[in-house]
Amino acid sequence: MSKKISIAIDAMGGDNSPDKTLEGVKLFLEKNKTKKDFLLNIFGKENILKKKLDNLNINTDQINIINSNNVVSDEESPMTAVKNSKNTSMWNCIQHQLEGKSDISLSAGNTGVLLVISRMILKMMNQVSKPALAGLWPNQNGMNVVLDLGANIECNDQNLVEFAELGSALFKSLFINDKPKVSLLNIGSEEIKGTEMLKSASKRLRELSNEENFIYNGYIEGNNIMKGDSNVIVTDGFTGNIALKTAEGTAKFITTNLKKSLTENIISKLSLIFSYFSLKKFKEKLDPRKYNGAIFLGLNGPVVKSHGGIDSIGFYYSIDLCYKIVKGDLMSQIKKNLNHTNSA
Amino acid sequence: MSKKISIAIDAMGGDNSPDKTLEGVKLFLEKNKTKKDFLLNIFGKENILKKKLDNLNINTDQINIINSNNVVSDEESPMTAVKNSKNTSMWNCIQHQLEGKSDISLSAGNTGVLLVISRMILKMMNQVSKPALAGLWPNQNGMNVVLDLGANIECNDQNLVEFAELGSALFKSLFINDKPKVSLLNIGSEEIKGTEMLKSASKRLRELSNEENFIYNGYIEGNNIMKGDSNVIVTDGFTGNIALKTAEGTAKFITTNLKKSLTENIISKLSLIFSYFSLKKFKEKLDPRKYNGAIFLGLNGPVVKSHGGIDSIGFYYSIDLCYKIVKGDLMSQIKKNLNHTNSA
Repeated sequence: MSKKISIAIDAMGGDNSPDKTLEGVKLFLEKNKTKKDFLLNIFGKENILKKKLDNLNINTDQINIINSNNVVSDEESPMTAVKNSKNTSMWNCIQHQLEGKSDISLSAGNTGVLLVISRMILKMMNQVSKPALAGLWPNQNGMNVVLDLGANIECNDQNLVEFAELGSALFKSLFINDKPKVSLLNIGSEEIKGTEMLKSASKRLRELSNEENFIYNGYIEGNNIMKGDSNVIVTDGFTGNIALKTAEGTAKFITTNLKKSLTENIISKLSLIFSYFSLKKFKEKLDPRKYNGAIFLGLNGPVVKSHGGIDSIGFYYSIDLCYKIVKGDLMSQIKKNLNHTNSA
Repeated sequence: MSKKISIAIDAMGGDNSPDKTLEGVKLFLEKNKTKKDFLLNIFGKENILKKKLDNLNINTDQINIINSNNVVSDEESPMTAVKNSKNTSMWNCIQHQLEGKSDISLSAGNTGVLLVISRMILKMMNQVSKPALAGLWPNQNGMNVVLDLGANIECNDQNLVEFAELGSALFKSLFINDKPKVSLLNIGSEEIKGTEMLKSASKRLRELSNEENFIYNGYIEGNNIMKGDSNVIVTDGFTGNIALKTAEGTAKFITTNLKKSLTENIISKLSLIFSYFSLKKFKEKLDPRKYNGAIFLGLNGPVVKSHGGIDSIGFYYSIDLCYKIVKGDLMSQIKKNLNHTNSA
C-alpha cells in the first residue's frame, strides 16, 4: 500500500475555532468515508479537541491529535511572528510537514504570520526567487488558478514567469484532465500594451509555451478572467489582490441587490416559489466557500490558508483542496515545470 | 440670460455611428425638452447628418451641424494620430472647444487617439503633472468616481494626490448635494500596507483632508469599492483599469448565469412572470449604459469618451454626463481644488 496523504490541520486559527475547523473535519470524513488513503493530523489544545471530537461523534480512525498549547493571535505582527509563534498549533503544523510527517499544512489563522513562518521553516525552493499565493476563481468553463494574490506587492518579469510555472503545476495537480492555459493580466490584449516588465515576461512565456508544461495565451484583460479561454491567470500580488477583492465586492453587491429586488413585494416573493431550485443551483455555483483556500507556492512543500471568517463548510472545502493537491502530486508537477524554465 | 452649455459631439466615432449617436441626441432632446440652456455642436459629414436628423424627425433648434469630411479610423495608432487626424470630426470637436465655442467634447471613437489629440490641442493645466481618465461606478449609496482608469500605467505619489483633487472636483460638479470622500485603493486598510509610494500619497492626502475640498478616508480594499463609505476612489491607471474591467467581467458572469438559471426549465420560467418588474428594476440599476462615459481630467477643458460599442441609450447617458459636468462647473471646481493642493 502506498503512503497515506497526510494533512496537518491547525484547528485553532480563524473565527469560531476549533468548532468550525472540527465541523469541517467531520464533513470531510463523511464525504470521504469510503477512502482510506488519508490521515488528518490535527493541532491544538488536546483536551479541548478530544472533547469536541467526542461531542461531534467523529470517528477518529484517520485522525491524529497533536497537542499544541499556544495559538497565534490575530493581532500578532509578521515582524515578531517568529519570536512569538513557536509551539503554536500553526507553527507545529509546518514543523510536522518539515519533518516529513505531513504532506501539506492548512490554517485559517493570521495570514501574515502563516506566510512568514512557512517560509522560514520550509524554505524556498532553490529555483524560485519569490513564493506566491494562488487562489481558485470560477470561470465559464470551470475553474481558474490566479496568482499572485498578495504575497509580493512588487514583482519583476522573472517572478511572473515563475508564477506561471507554479500556477500551471497547481492547475495540473487539481484538474488532471485539463491543460493549463496561461495568460498575463494586462490593460489590453495587444502586444504593445502594458509596462516593459510585462512585455519582457510575455516574451519569455511565449518562448516557454508548449503542450507539456503550459500553453501561453498572451495578455488577458480583467473583463475576460471569467470567460474560460485561459485558466491560469498570472499577475503581481498588488494587482491580483485588488482584482480578486474587486470581484468579491462586485459579486456581493449584485447578489445583495438581487435579493432585495426579489423580496421587495408580495408578487416578487411569489416568484421565489417557482425559481427556488434554479436560484439555489445558481447560488451554489457562486458560493465563495467552494473557492476557499489560498495556496502558498514556491516553498519546499505546499501550505494552504483558509479564509479566517469562513464557516465549517468553507473549511471543509479547504481540507478537500489539500487532499486533492497532494493526490495530484503538486510538488512533482512544480519540479517538472521549474526544470522546464531553467532548461529552456 | 447666461451663456448656454455648449457640447461638441463627434457623431462619427464608435460602432454604428452616426445612427447611434444621433439616436442618442434624439433621446437627450426628448428628455430635456423644457430646457433651453444647451446647444449641441454635432461634427461629421454634413449631408449624411442632415439626412439622418431629418429621418429621425429631430428638432434642430438647439443643434448646430459642423461639417467634417474625415473620420478617425479604429485602427489608427496614437503614435501617428496627430499627423493623420487633422480635420476629422474628433479633431474638430476639440479644436472647437479650444476656440471657446464648446465647453466640453464627447466622442465614442478611438480612445488612444482621443487622449493624444485632446492633450495636444487643449494642453495640460499648469498645476497638473499627468492627466487622468475618470469613470463612474455604482455603490450601495449612489455613485463613485474612480480614477485613473488607464491613462497612466505608472504613477508617483504626487500624481495620486492630483487625481484625488481632480476626482473630488468631478464628484462635486456631478453630485452637488454630496461631499467627496476620497480613498486610496490598496491591498489592506492598515497604515503599514502597500508600497512606499502609496504610503507617501496617503500621508499627503491626510494633511490635505478638509470639509471644503475632500475628506480623506484612508485606504480602501477592492471588496469595499461598492460599499459607499468612500465615493472618490484613487489609484494608478494600471490597477484602476484592471479593477474596473474585473468588476465588469464579474457582473457579466453573474447576470449570464442568473439568466441561464431562471430560464432553464418551465417552472423557473414561470417565476419570471412574478418577478418581471422587480428584475427589471434590478437590471436597470446595474445597466452599464448608465455609467457610460470616461472623463479625461487635467486638461484645460473636459473631454468625455463614450464606450465605442455602446448603443444609442448609452450614448444618451454620455451626452447627459457632459451636460451635468458643465452645469456643475467642473473647471472651477478643479481650479479651486488644485489651489488647495498647492497652497496647503
